[in-house]
Amino acid sequence: MVTLNCDMGESYGNWQFGDDAGIMPYVDCANIACGFHAGDPITMHKAVALAVDHGKDIGAHPSLPDREGFGRREMRLPPEELRAAFIYQIGALAGVARAHGASLSHVKPHGIIYGMAAREDVYAVAIAQAVKVFDLPLFGMAGTQHELAAEAVGVPFVGEFFADLNYGPAGQLIIPRIHSAIDLDKASARLARALAEGKVQSVEGNDVDIRFSTVCIHSDPPNSREVAATMRRVLDTVKR
Amino acid sequence: MVTLNCDMGESYGNWQFGDDAGIMPYVDCANIACGFHAGDPITMHKAVALAVDHGKDIGAHPSLPDREGFGRREMRLPPEELRAAFIYQIGALAGVARAHGASLSHVKPHGIIYGMAAREDVYAVAIAQAVKVFDLPLFGMAGTQHELAAEAVGVPFVGEFFADLNYGPAGQLIIPRIHSAIDLDKASARLARALAEGKVQSVEGNDVDIRFSTVCIHSDPPNSREVAATMRRVLDTVKR
Amino acid sequence: MVTLNCDMGESYGNWQFGDDAGIMPYVDCANIACGFHAGDPITMHKAVALAVDHGKDIGAHPSLPDREGFGRREMRLPPEELRAAFIYQIGALAGVARAHGASLSHVKPHGIIYGMAAREDVYAVAIAQAVKVFDLPLFGMAGTQHELAAEAVGVPFVGEFFADLNYGPAGQLIIPRIHSAIDLDKASARLARALAEGKVQSVEGNDVDIRFSTVCIHSDPPNSREVAATMRRVLDTVKR
Amino acid sequence: MVTLNCDMGESYGNWQFGDDAGIMPYVDCANIACGFHAGDPITMHKAVALAVDHGKDIGAHPSLPDREGFGRREMRLPPEELRAAFIYQIGALAGVARAHGASLSHVKPHGIIYGMAAREDVYAVAIAQAVKVFDLPLFGMAGTQHELAAEAVGVPFVGEFFADLNYGPAGQLIIPRIHSAIDLDKASARLARALAEGKVQSVEGNDVDIRFSTVCIHSDPPNSREVAATMRRVLDTVKR
Repeated sequence: MVTLNCDMGESYGNWQFGDDAGIMPYVDCANIACGFHAGDPITMHKAVALAVDHGKDIGAHPSLPDREGFGRREMRLPPEELRAAFIYQIGALAGVARAHGASLSHVKPHGIIYGMAAREDVYAVAIAQAVKVFDLPLFGMAGTQHELAAEAVGVPFVGEFFADLNYGPAGQLIIPRIHSAIDLDKASARLARALAEGKVQSVEGNDVDIRFSTVCIHSDPPNSREVAATMRRVLDTVKR
Repeated sequence: MVTLNCDMGESYGNWQFGDDAGIMPYVDCANIACGFHAGDPITMHKAVALAVDHGKDIGAHPSLPDREGFGRREMRLPPEELRAAFIYQIGALAGVARAHGASLSHVKPHGIIYGMAAREDVYAVAIAQAVKVFDLPLFGMAGTQHELAAEAVGVPFVGEFFADLNYGPAGQLIIPRIHSAIDLDKASARLARALAEGKVQSVEGNDVDIRFSTVCIHSDPPNSREVAATMRRVLDTVKR
Repeated sequence: MVTLNCDMGESYGNWQFGDDAGIMPYVDCANIACGFHAGDPITMHKAVALAVDHGKDIGAHPSLPDREGFGRREMRLPPEELRAAFIYQIGALAGVARAHGASLSHVKPHGIIYGMAAREDVYAVAIAQAVKVFDLPLFGMAGTQHELAAEAVGVPFVGEFFADLNYGPAGQLIIPRIHSAIDLDKASARLARALAEGKVQSVEGNDVDIRFSTVCIHSDPPNSREVAATMRRVLDTVKR
Repeated sequence: MVTLNCDMGESYGNWQFGDDAGIMPYVDCANIACGFHAGDPITMHKAVALAVDHGKDIGAHPSLPDREGFGRREMRLPPEELRAAFIYQIGALAGVARAHGASLSHVKPHGIIYGMAAREDVYAVAIAQAVKVFDLPLFGMAGTQHELAAEAVGVPFVGEFFADLNYGPAGQLIIPRIHSAIDLDKASARLARALAEGKVQSVEGNDVDIRFSTVCIHSDPPNSREVAATMRRVLDTVKR
């Protein structure tokens, strides 16, 4: 079965972000921000409570320590600092989950470090080692350094397909700082093809092979709820 | 047995704070900062590793979210935010401990919130509820709202004596922003009397009753290592 | 002439806050957040540019150092730290204004410190001293410690009326953490009466005297643009 | 005349850093941290007061927004964000200086962005544009993108020699996260040769040409005060 996951809990203090309540019914897994790029203790509690209420899986969504840049600005941490930062964040969310009688089911890196881990072994290993501490599976892009590192470290790896992001010609993700509205028909067709053929067309027109068992959507496009409902329908309809 | 505990891991980034390595051999429990008033992921790893190497108990030392004020400036959080902030911090340190094959043995609030919890029920309850999530004992000042709240919530409470702080006439702690050197003879005599008689003299000269089963020292007075060695000696010598 | 002012530039990083572009045409003065409760360097630049484009006055809107709490949680800084924090923030915004060929025209404290300065002399003086450094007028609540301190320090004081906040029975402001929609008719009638009679009804029904020469609105109620347009109309219509 | 400058005001909250008081008498210019990698409002006030008391020039020492990494971790900001961050920081320090009746005399970027600006035009231009707003000279490494950008933007450029850092074979600075003690004899000989011949030996043994009119030292090596006194003596003795 291919699951649907979404990054959530990305509000901060008085600032609201994303339609978590609208999206939660459609997803299988909520990746919840851990306070470094978004989220704060009370925001995390609310996001965990929402996921628990809907009976959804809870994953940690750790990132680089860059709140102002929403974890989307490149930052080169020494690998031991990156590893420590991820352990801290996963532990913090595990604590919040425990307060709700829940536990974590996976980890998914947020933002630019997701792509850095796909390309650079040193970051991929640091992340895999952090996840290993908690005996959890790791979401990432299959066929990259990230997957190789997870295998080397001994962490189960779950390949992702991004329903609402564009891919570069070499299969790399194009992560905008701010998401605009998603074309539902295009996204549906793309996901259906990815499920059926394991391929997606890049922004330059070539086909890229995609191996995945979970599909990611984001909470911040203006029509995120419709995206969630639509992708859910595609996943429930298209046989693979 | 009366234990000796010390607040540790209070460096931050490039800034060093306290003589953790010098003090660790003398204490029983290390209360490790969790990143809100001091500490950061890599600093917490080093502090936990040091405690593990010495076979010492590891406690979480959470605080108000005020790094610039070192958790020593009064800040009035809604109780649900305080509770969430403590759960976040304890969880984060539990994660770091897990990376070292260790687990937490207690929680001790840091700085001004320690005194606020002693005086104000609403904060005491929020803290006790956070600690309850982790099934850990809570260090605090006996005979205060803090102890009452712990009892009400069902959290084991461990009374503390502060060997290196002054007490006010009503038994309240006087917590300076920056600690100066401790008079070893005075501190020894004070601890010996506290152990023998359960009393300490306040800054105004009256005697205050102190009920405790752990003794706290700090890592930041200039002579903190000597304080640690001296208090250890008093604890090992004076029969109670 | 009574002016209309609004707190602006209260986005942070990727998080949007308030309808600055929609409100700017209606106000006389933009109070721009300085990075401590909201705002960041690039957000401040955009807010200043918007104000300059519309030919509006630019004021600094400094606050307590509490981004997660949006400057709306009580925090007790030593007065010299509060004074320094305000000088830092006003200086930073003055720099941004200079980059746009503009300069500051006033200072208005943000959030809970606004009310603390109204009640407590020590904070009022610290703020007035900070503003004195820049030779600017200070917005605040007339008839309070804030005004007395401004007079004592030698800073021109501009009394404010809050069109979209409730007043307590003693004339104190009731500042919510999150603003809900404003009743336009009620707000119009309230402002018209305040202009005509210098009185406002408190939440407990008694009349409170209000002395003011500027009217404040906020950018975050859902209907903030309509509030701005309506208050503008009242100000332009009602003779005083 | 060749001046001596030092990075100062790099404490943060309760954390002390560097021997500002010991070094100040020996330098001509104090580069004062602006709160992004180090410093906070009250720390900046103390540093400015110290410089004013000694009649020294005050420069802004802005950095990347990375306190935990002390501005020594690479971070890729969009150039408009870097420019805004520098304007914010310079403005903030200018405000603090104004509170002491002083004004700024120069700007010197801190940490890793100093080297990034030397290598990468886009950062060099962003920094030069920020400094241009304040009509101040800019300290940097001569013969780099930094100098070219300053010339292009129209900002006076002051070449620096680093008395207490090593140079790479291509003349690039080697900036450690933590500074260890400096060999005074080696540093003296190096500075004397740099003054006399405009050359310094790199860590790989080759000679590198250095063009400078100011000499930088740091406040955080354990023997920083002796370094300051020694470099002062060399500067006062060696004729150029």
